[in-house]
Amino acid sequence: MNRVYNFSAGPSMLPLTVLEKAASELVCYGESGMSVMEMSHRSPDYEAIIKEAEAMLRKLMDIPDNYKVLFLQGGASTQFAAVPLNLINRTGKAYYIVSGQFSGKAFKEAQKLGYDVKCVATTKDDNFDHVPEVTRDAFRSDAAYVHICFNNTIYGTKYHYIPDTGDIPLVADMSSCIISEPVDVSKFGVIYAGAQKNMAPAGLTIVIVREDLLGYAEEKMPTMLDWKVMAENDSMYNTPPCYAIYMAKLVYEWILSIGGLDAMKVHNEKKANLLYDYLDSQSYYVAPVKKDSRSMMNVTFVTGNADLDKKFASEASAAGLKNLKGHRSVGGMRASIYNAMPYEGVEKLVAFMKDFAEKNPK
Amino acid sequence: MNRVYNFSAGPSMLPLTVLEKAASELVCYGESGMSVMEMSHRSPDYEAIIKEAEAMLRKLMDIPDNYKVLFLQGGASTQFAAVPLNLINRTGKAYYIVSGQFSGKAFKEAQKLGYDVKCVATTKDDNFDHVPEVTRDAFRSDAAYVHICFNNTIYGTKYHYIPDTGDIPLVADMSSCIISEPVDVSKFGVIYAGAQKNMAPAGLTIVIVREDLLGYAEEKMPTMLDWKVMAENDSMYNTPPCYAIYMAKLVYEWILSIGGLDAMKVHNEKKANLLYDYLDSQSYYVAPVKKDSRSMMNVTFVTGNADLDKKFASEASAAGLKNLKGHRSVGGMRASIYNAMPYEGVEKLVAFMKDFAEKNPK
Repeated sequence: MNRVYNFSAGPSMLPLTVLEKAASELVCYGESGMSVMEMSHRSPDYEAIIKEAEAMLRKLMDIPDNYKVLFLQGGASTQFAAVPLNLINRTGKAYYIVSGQFSGKAFKEAQKLGYDVKCVATTKDDNFDHVPEVTRDAFRSDAAYVHICFNNTIYGTKYHYIPDTGDIPLVADMSSCIISEPVDVSKFGVIYAGAQKNMAPAGLTIVIVREDLLGYAEEKMPTMLDWKVMAENDSMYNTPPCYAIYMAKLVYEWILSIGGLDAMKVHNEKKANLLYDYLDSQSYYVAPVKKDSRSMMNVTFVTGNADLDKKFASEASAAGLKNLKGHRSVGGMRASIYNAMPYEGVEKLVAFMKDFAEKNPK
Repeated sequence: MNRVYNFSAGPSMLPLTVLEKAASELVCYGESGMSVMEMSHRSPDYEAIIKEAEAMLRKLMDIPDNYKVLFLQGGASTQFAAVPLNLINRTGKAYYIVSGQFSGKAFKEAQKLGYDVKCVATTKDDNFDHVPEVTRDAFRSDAAYVHICFNNTIYGTKYHYIPDTGDIPLVADMSSCIISEPVDVSKFGVIYAGAQKNMAPAGLTIVIVREDLLGYAEEKMPTMLDWKVMAENDSMYNTPPCYAIYMAKLVYEWILSIGGLDAMKVHNEKKANLLYDYLDSQSYYVAPVKKDSRSMMNVTFVTGNADLDKKFASEASAAGLKNLKGHRSVGGMRASIYNAMPYEGVEKLVAFMKDFAEKNPK
């Protein structure tokens, strides 16, 4: 077995101990005589798994009791539609902050559905090199919600503050930063995330929703997108993505075992600092993101020469540092260093970067 | 390792060789240095997997070239909404045949969305003990589609004919019978199926759609439910349920290795005949389904005494024959004997049934 360091933006690395545990019990789980993949979702064995997964996530994120936790399918892209379908009827209009490609997609999806939505701030003109600074007076109180994307995977930016929206529920796509550090859930009306970056294999979507926001769903909407129906059925209105939920449980267990989100944050900061400190110490590579908007999960950088960028990604891959090519829409390089990326992976990356800069003078 | 025989209606048994192969390469897939769960869905390694999965399914089911194969999320329940959202605009109305709980749910979902849909036949008054017989003249030619559920998991019934709908596209939910035997795909406009019964772990939904039926989607609908968008993006509009697709590929490979769907049908008929022949040979158990509607996948039977039924399921479970309790809405027993159930499992079940009948005279 020759494991590589996988800097993919998602799906992405899972902790080796989690993978090994999953492999060891894949054919037979405990005393059940079957794989978790084969279990009826309504069997006691499986119900124990999904309940434990929820309890662990609640503990990890310190989720208040007046929030529901839903285990769904369809990815954040499905939630781009579910958010307005579930919430906009509260007042009839909503605000979006567009800080990158996915928040832009969320905004467009709400427009496509025919809703009265408005983009109140964007950093598009700056090529999304930072997140917008917004203050309370940017929002009129008649909004049903304000939508943000908390960490922008493609550009490598993140909010380093929680926008103050007053009484207006703040809805955040946290796909690429969830459970990477503690976050005050009570500041949000809804948090949602595709699980394939920091939590589990692709195919699971988490929605954390404050109870008083349930019950405003459009009458004529697909039942499967109605959070209230999902909440009332404990995410079992139909068959949930059972195995991905089991994998998420193993990941939550792993984080709890190493000290929870406080420890996770220390681990993640240490990795990100190593990389950003190196980037700031030299001039061969440029980190395009403004310092106060830097993501701890996705670190973008360029050489300033598209051919060199290409050579970098290719030679890094040959050296066991995989998927460092930037997103196809922005180019350059991107190192996604989610929870499961070991510190050694970033050390090896920095060593490779130094070596590459020496061998390829500009 | 002490594997049980799992008669669950879904999620359900997977072939042991498939599980063993998945376990052996869970931590590191081939030369990739990573788990399939960790692969970027846009990486060459993963693209090879999804392309092979599609090619194998096309080969298995002999899917004509003018049909698209989509790998989606959300289960058949999501397709209950997607079907009208994608198709009804062709003419503005549609017909449903209600032969059980899931076809009833599909019908209600279309009604909930506000569409002009009509139930043209149902066997509800007969407690769904057979599927309706419908002929061409049941359908007016102005329908956008006719929807059926081809195998009714809960009641244990199946269509033993393909309804003649003339030029009206026939849409079939095949969740609980797909790839259990050959079926003439060209007789259908759309076939869809949750994968968790005969194909893969839960979290994957297959849609097979004739190309000329794409392009009628509602303008104001969730993009993720639009088959045309999914087809144009090769099921990668967003991150697909990568690992479940990989598992499906292993299952397709297994079926191809044992002779494809012709061989699968022989295997499944042999199992079903063993059980039905026994049921027909005695009077202790009653099989409520009419003979011409019997399912090859889900075999229902009762003792006629609810306490005995309960005792049966409980003692069978203790003997390693799991999940034989009937669906909570109908009671009795149900043996789901999908592709992966070995013949020996049904032999053991019949032996247990004989023994139970002897020990528990009525």
